[in-house]
Amino acid sequence: MPFAVLMQDPLAGTLMLLALLWLSAKVGGELALRLKLPSVTGELAMGLVLTALHRAWPLLPDVAASPATELLGGLGVVVLMFAVGLESTVPQMLKVGLASLRVALIGVALPMAAGLAGAWLLLPSGSPFVLDLFIGACLCATSIGISAQVLREKGASHSVAGRIIVGAAVIDDVLGLLVLVAASSLVGAASGGPAGLKLAGTLALALGFLALAFTLGRLVTPHLFRLANRFRSEQVLLPLGLGFAFLLAWLGNLAGLASIVGAYAAGLILEPAHIEDLERRERSTLVELVHPLVTVLSPLFFVLMGARVDPSALFRPATLGFAGLLAVLGVAGKFLAGFGSGRGIRSAVVGWGMVPRGEVGLIFVATGAQLQLNGSPLLNADVQAGVIGALLLTTVAGPVGLGWVLKRRH
Amino acid sequence: MPFAVLMQDPLAGTLMLLALLWLSAKVGGELALRLKLPSVTGELAMGLVLTALHRAWPLLPDVAASPATELLGGLGVVVLMFAVGLESTVPQMLKVGLASLRVALIGVALPMAAGLAGAWLLLPSGSPFVLDLFIGACLCATSIGISAQVLREKGASHSVAGRIIVGAAVIDDVLGLLVLVAASSLVGAASGGPAGLKLAGTLALALGFLALAFTLGRLVTPHLFRLANRFRSEQVLLPLGLGFAFLLAWLGNLAGLASIVGAYAAGLILEPAHIEDLERRERSTLVELVHPLVTVLSPLFFVLMGARVDPSALFRPATLGFAGLLAVLGVAGKFLAGFGSGRGIRSAVVGWGMVPRGEVGLIFVATGAQLQLNGSPLLNADVQAGVIGALLLTTVAGPVGLGWVLKRRH
Repeated sequence: MPFAVLMQDPLAGTLMLLALLWLSAKVGGELALRLKLPSVTGELAMGLVLTALHRAWPLLPDVAASPATELLGGLGVVVLMFAVGLESTVPQMLKVGLASLRVALIGVALPMAAGLAGAWLLLPSGSPFVLDLFIGACLCATSIGISAQVLREKGASHSVAGRIIVGAAVIDDVLGLLVLVAASSLVGAASGGPAGLKLAGTLALALGFLALAFTLGRLVTPHLFRLANRFRSEQVLLPLGLGFAFLLAWLGNLAGLASIVGAYAAGLILEPAHIEDLERRERSTLVELVHPLVTVLSPLFFVLMGARVDPSALFRPATLGFAGLLAVLGVAGKFLAGFGSGRGIRSAVVGWGMVPRGEVGLIFVATGAQLQLNGSPLLNADVQAGVIGALLLTTVAGPVGLGWVLKRRH
Repeated sequence: MPFAVLMQDPLAGTLMLLALLWLSAKVGGELALRLKLPSVTGELAMGLVLTALHRAWPLLPDVAASPATELLGGLGVVVLMFAVGLESTVPQMLKVGLASLRVALIGVALPMAAGLAGAWLLLPSGSPFVLDLFIGACLCATSIGISAQVLREKGASHSVAGRIIVGAAVIDDVLGLLVLVAASSLVGAASGGPAGLKLAGTLALALGFLALAFTLGRLVTPHLFRLANRFRSEQVLLPLGLGFAFLLAWLGNLAGLASIVGAYAAGLILEPAHIEDLERRERSTLVELVHPLVTVLSPLFFVLMGARVDPSALFRPATLGFAGLLAVLGVAGKFLAGFGSGRGIRSAVVGWGMVPRGEVGLIFVATGAQLQLNGSPLLNADVQAGVIGALLLTTVAGPVGLGWVLKRRH
């Protein structure tokens, strides 16, 4: 170079990488959308492509190894789950009918059993029971984002089937988190020590945190935010709201739960009534203020998840077979759950609507990759690639099937 | 601990630290506001307090040493400067009168000369000329945020004096950035090699980038965003807008400029007309979408800047004397600049309105701390503490003086 770079800003490389990731995520999402697929699919695929490109030309940045992407993507999931929590309240939960509850319960039990059976059939016989259980858990949670988007695109958001799907997906999220806690506790117990006592203790600590959050938390939160209302400063709502979510995420993590569970709990606890004065003063709702953060941070998470898939592991026949069978079992389980809402075309609409597994399943995989069992990660690279492959297949099959039955209905 | 923590989320500590920083920033800002000071002052002071507390009880987190805070705070300044750039356009620049231009020019020349003289008087005689120059540059840029906030609080935003202040502050920002480039180029030249050629080359590269950005960039940008308008995906405006800013920040850095200069240039180039279709479709303007990011990230930058001040260096009599004299010179220079707008009470209002130095001065200090001269940072810890002390004093003196003359005017 003829002239030395004057200021080697250590941030500059990160800025370039983030610009590249946002562009890739949006282009990938757009391509997926044009193929009638949800954009999450495209973002994941873009991550895969970026890693494959880096393998071929090592000069290109290695997305999977970037600490900045890991931090921002990690914050992205926490903020996303806080936002999902903010959009539900306890009264809304009570409004969703018995049909939603039935669909959700069957839609968790069947894929769980199917995933468990599939993992037991396909994995080496020495594999621990908790691993099979965890793989089953990964197939439980419907991606409410994907379902809601397809329903809106097809103008079916306000049909009875549409409402049942969204209601069931909300319950599903909660059940999924409970399953995650239970499965994770079993892993904790399996890694040595007096299992029964440890499981009981861990469960008590985790349930204790949730119980405290939903009782004491719900009592204290209005007072906390009334205190914040006395602030004369502007722009306090978002930093304090996020601070509250991050604090609960940290406390939840101390109690043994994943950070996202605490952030989701913070979102459920915080209700519009607690912050309406602050929202009026700042002329925006907390949901509106959190939205741009989700928009910017969560694509980084999805691209990073894709980038972490080992392309040579995914495109091995054994992995593809494993992913394919898991996907078929997952689709069948959710499709059968549709009968919880009645018979006929409605059950097919609801069933297909429950099929796409997205964000939450990926979060489960990320959690499973972090969990340690006998000193190694619970989900190794092959299993991760297989489960992510299965999730990818359901996010492709779901909207395609839903679009097809919605057309037939007319 | 009776029960092992189940999932040691590596992010959990960061979540707790961020919650702590947001709470501290907001409480510090609120305390400052109650003392009739701008909230930036309180955020800086809180950073100082957190570092002092960490020194006393090492169990408390060390804010100044947190890589996550450094990344997020660094992104905060880049996003802040993009937002500042977005709020100005070339036509708006042309509208601000000759009075603003005179105030801005005097308000850069006098504090620069005064700061240079002060640094020359107070620093050890062996200190390089570029250091004196850089300290003068730190005293140039008026904090438009602080001025605008005080004017709005006092209901004087739309007075003639108020418009002159805001106009001059806008020009000031641009002049300040040019001074930063010139001073930085001199540092680059001073650090060895054939100085004249190197300076000419660096200047050509930097000015070439800016010239290309403002000509080719302005020509290409509308087409780029018209292309983005063809996207059927939702939520493309913010990721692509930020990606554009980060890309220019990176390119500017390659051309030798600080990242913030490129981000600011990106904001100036992007005009509402280029993105009005996207803004209509997403039912929010880019400014509205960027706002929450600034709200969340920039306080982290200010607290971090405060946390990096060595408390034992600041409260040394020599540093306090240096800071005090720089502050007096800085206030005097801006006060005299007020006469560029005419005589009588208006010149006093404009002069005091130009006094507060905030964000931009701190960015200069951060840049100066990163610049390398003969292998060591241009601004060492003592000089940093002194200059930040001087900036703190002007952000205290400015609103106090402005409030006083605005009251006298009535």
